Amino acid sequence: MNFSVEPIGFLKTPFPEKFGIPRQPGLAPNARGELVLEPEFNREGVFDGLSEASHVWLIFLFHLQQGQWKPKVRPPRAGGNIKRGVFATRSPNRPNRIGLSVVELHSVDTDKNRLRLANIDLVDGTPILDVKPYVPYADCLTHASYGFAHLAPKELSVEWEPELLELVPGEVRNLATDVLRWDPRPAYQKDDREYGSSFENWNLRWSVEEDILRVRSAEPIVKLGPNSP
Amino acid sequence: MNFSVEPIGFLKTPFPEKFGIPRQPGLAPNARGELVLEPEFNREGVFDGLSEASHVWLIFLFHLQQGQWKPKVRPPRAGGNIKRGVFATRSPNRPNRIGLSVVELHSVDTDKNRLRLANIDLVDGTPILDVKPYVPYADCLTHASYGFAHLAPKELSVEWEPELLELVPGEVRNLATDVLRWDPRPAYQKDDREYGSSFENWNLRWSVEEDILRVRSAEPIVKLGPNSP
Repeated sequence: MNFSVEPIGFLKTPFPEKFGIPRQPGLAPNARGELVLEPEFNREGVFDGLSEASHVWLIFLFHLQQGQWKPKVRPPRAGGNIKRGVFATRSPNRPNRIGLSVVELHSVDTDKNRLRLANIDLVDGTPILDVKPYVPYADCLTHASYGFAHLAPKELSVEWEPELLELVPGEVRNLATDVLRWDPRPAYQKDDREYGSSFENWNLRWSVEEDILRVRSAEPIVKLGPNSP
Repeated sequence: MNFSVEPIGFLKTPFPEKFGIPRQPGLAPNARGELVLEPEFNREGVFDGLSEASHVWLIFLFHLQQGQWKPKVRPPRAGGNIKRGVFATRSPNRPNRIGLSVVELHSVDTDKNRLRLANIDLVDGTPILDVKPYVPYADCLTHASYGFAHLAPKELSVEWEPELLELVPGEVRNLATDVLRWDPRPAYQKDDREYGSSFENWNLRWSVEEDILRVRSAEPIVKLGPNSP
């Protein structure tokens, strides 16, 4: 018994790749993005009244996820060595590959019929299946609990090599700082090796020592156009 | 660009029909149910560790919803006369017909590999696409707001005709009281006419005067088996 679903639109975000993206939403206020509707769903009035909401749920597809789902996975927050049932995690490697994320609604762009969003944790180009308002009295369960995942992750201090402060635009630095402070290293590999991750069109190299993440170098990502040699 | 999704399982709930079901979860502690996995997804360990969660998200299909979605709908909570954009509501009449509901996790039945749930607002037989743990630090946004929907609905006092107290089993009465106190009448028709709604295998007739909902009569629902005349 299969059902067919169709993306209502796609997300524009500053994250060109999966690695380095905050693992839960709400951790990166500088991570802004837009929901661009597909022509079939880009109808007048679909967002009427939504601007009263401070936050929205995005139901999306983990479109980069490949391979077959498995009954048990290793969630990064659990240390990477403990296996948990797939339905006890938010892992992308799951039946139907459906994701759920709450993001801040910055504004409704009524001219273009787009949603401007903040605090996004999704990769650029993510297909969106649905948008729903966050309804506080129903969705915010102040008495809820969930063992180890109950607590917010530990924060790192992010420091930039002085020469990068002039090279990398302030908005890209703010975005990267927001994201990197949550320590994107896989839990099973928390050593001091150098990592790379991309924000907007910048590729950053960084490493971690104790509680400090140092951004060591930055290179613009050059996209070759159709007329490039 | 279409994607195919498949129910991981189906929900057993005490609500044989749509009318009278609480419009948001968390309002009916006596509404219990079970998630029964389909054979393909009924694999050992899929729920391992989930019993640490007090609540879970259900991502489901509004399978009874028929007809084409419309850009604007009349949400019952807004009074039934005000139209809102479909993405500003939780209306079932939406693209992809995907629903989102948080329910209480009563326990994980490890023998049968089932979830026992409470505070359910879904009709019996609802197809479930995904189960995810409710993660309080990410999902409970204490600073979020959403205009009129911010406040919980007004509660009615539910009274039963004395002869029904012996006729209808206590658990069905508790369930129905939980649900009926949230006033299932459509917002555009809040008068004193008699309504009927079903709970488990009981059909109840009730009406509302001012802030009191009175259950007037009850009849068992007789299901005809294959050998019935």
